[in-house]
Amino acid sequence: MIKAYAAMEPGAALVPFEYEPGPLANNEVELKVESCGICHSDLSMLDNEWGFTQYPFVGGHEVIGIVEAVGSSVNNVAVGQRVGLGWHSGYCNTCASCQSGDQNLCNSAQPTIAGHHGGFADKVRADANAVVALPEGVNPDSAGPLFCGGITVFNPLVQFGIKPTSKVGVIGIGGLGHIALQFLNAWGCEVTAFTSSESKKEEALKLGAHHVLNSSDAAQLEAAAGRFDFIISTVNVKLDWNEYLATLAPKGRLHFVGATLAPLDINVFQLIGSQREISGSPVGSPGTISQMLDFAALHNIQPVTEYFRFDQINEALTKLREGKAHYRIVLTNK
Amino acid sequence: MIKAYAAMEPGAALVPFEYEPGPLANNEVELKVESCGICHSDLSMLDNEWGFTQYPFVGGHEVIGIVEAVGSSVNNVAVGQRVGLGWHSGYCNTCASCQSGDQNLCNSAQPTIAGHHGGFADKVRADANAVVALPEGVNPDSAGPLFCGGITVFNPLVQFGIKPTSKVGVIGIGGLGHIALQFLNAWGCEVTAFTSSESKKEEALKLGAHHVLNSSDAAQLEAAAGRFDFIISTVNVKLDWNEYLATLAPKGRLHFVGATLAPLDINVFQLIGSQREISGSPVGSPGTISQMLDFAALHNIQPVTEYFRFDQINEALTKLREGKAHYRIVLTNK
Repeated sequence: MIKAYAAMEPGAALVPFEYEPGPLANNEVELKVESCGICHSDLSMLDNEWGFTQYPFVGGHEVIGIVEAVGSSVNNVAVGQRVGLGWHSGYCNTCASCQSGDQNLCNSAQPTIAGHHGGFADKVRADANAVVALPEGVNPDSAGPLFCGGITVFNPLVQFGIKPTSKVGVIGIGGLGHIALQFLNAWGCEVTAFTSSESKKEEALKLGAHHVLNSSDAAQLEAAAGRFDFIISTVNVKLDWNEYLATLAPKGRLHFVGATLAPLDINVFQLIGSQREISGSPVGSPGTISQMLDFAALHNIQPVTEYFRFDQINEALTKLREGKAHYRIVLTNK
Repeated sequence: MIKAYAAMEPGAALVPFEYEPGPLANNEVELKVESCGICHSDLSMLDNEWGFTQYPFVGGHEVIGIVEAVGSSVNNVAVGQRVGLGWHSGYCNTCASCQSGDQNLCNSAQPTIAGHHGGFADKVRADANAVVALPEGVNPDSAGPLFCGGITVFNPLVQFGIKPTSKVGVIGIGGLGHIALQFLNAWGCEVTAFTSSESKKEEALKLGAHHVLNSSDAAQLEAAAGRFDFIISTVNVKLDWNEYLATLAPKGRLHFVGATLAPLDINVFQLIGSQREISGSPVGSPGTISQMLDFAALHNIQPVTEYFRFDQINEALTKLREGKAHYRIVLTNK
């Protein structure tokens, strides 16, 4: 039996929940969970905000764990190895995206927390090729959030060939943004943090921003017209996206990893005049996660974390819901 | 004196208008106009739809002409040479975009028909590096529209590295779309024309489409889910862009060259889930125009044109305004 914490209905408090996972499939691994980050999408799923949550719902998709058992055909990881598991716990392995190394774009990818039980538990299972070994030099205690929050902001740098000579901006200095600042600084870029809270200014500079721009000050945004090659938005609220588009240089890109429910009211002239682009992306492939971990190890990049015990999970969720997490909450029994 | 046709106020009929261009600058050329295409943006400018038209307004930015005079520092073209002139008649030549060969993205580029008099005239002037020599094999009679309509749909293929293995779609089979079909077919792509008029189906197939999809039939759009790598929209009306985004494959791009005034109501989940992109672009650089002309010559690509004499310009504008141009109107006295 796997001992987990589950919500029995939308928005409910989590309660202890046991389930029988059945026999381990040939291509699966079972992890003993050491720690599990809590991501904002765990809350969205808990609340069934996106409409596809199944209950009992066991969240948790920023897992660090030790491989305890492997299926008969598994050869990429071994029992005893420390690995991470993120948003996806399996792929079809046969579609064009999988064949191109873009498993995260696989239409049949298995989310770890939808139709599958996640890492708010003592154990979790996944297809072996969905877990990634933790390299030397990555601190396992804080590594959980790299597997969703981290890869979500790292992946676009790889996908769109962001250059060290690029001028980049990060909208939102929270769970994702505070990791993005670190990656982009190490990437060699000139980094600007957009934030509406003056209080985050000092911290943004410490995390790797070279400049901080108060995004609630229209004059500051206007003065930045045509400045950035790449802006990544990590927020899930509606902003005036045309104001941000105007801060992009010719051929600049505004990239969304934060999922705002309101439509993006884009003025097409903002795109046409200077050949600007808008895009979005979800997490990253196992291969890109592996690149990210090596990059994080080399540059000593770590999510800023605070810790709760697994049995404090409801307090932890409440703190995240209130926007008070600083910056990423990790559950651990260590 | 240059003898032109000008509108004296927004939406007015054009009347004969003479102006004195002054001494030819060192870097300028003067062309004797042989023909001039009429583009939908001539109408938008005539009507001051975009708010920056100056009157008297002389439109015309799809010019084919013979170089009649060159300034003292001009060395890229010579008197007697046949050249074309498009949307831009000059660039700053010093900004980052100009230095990168992206002159069409220069913030200080000189539009041929704003703050400058265009090709609805017997002569027109331009900076020498804004005109491009017509290569052997390009029919000068129909080449005018390549310099705005043509380059507008050719340029994105170069900018975004569209591959011959790509599945592509063209929205709108009109002045731009009918050239896009030809380019994309010659580019090696599997080409689908989206059109709401059944009557254009046969013609779209003749112009290079392999498939025609009736875009007013929601079921046909739905059946195309995830199919296209690249869709170019040439229309200037509001469509349900999220329906089109859903027809894009992972990493697919919806590219706008048609300027719709209504905001694009984009659902960000359509971008994030499959790493899709939205973009826009304006015309193309002189270098890309030159590539386009060589490509058009090699593949015998020609705008489908109908001809009016210069003194019939008001009838020609009326026909375009009524959406009856088939597909591109060219003024000529030949």
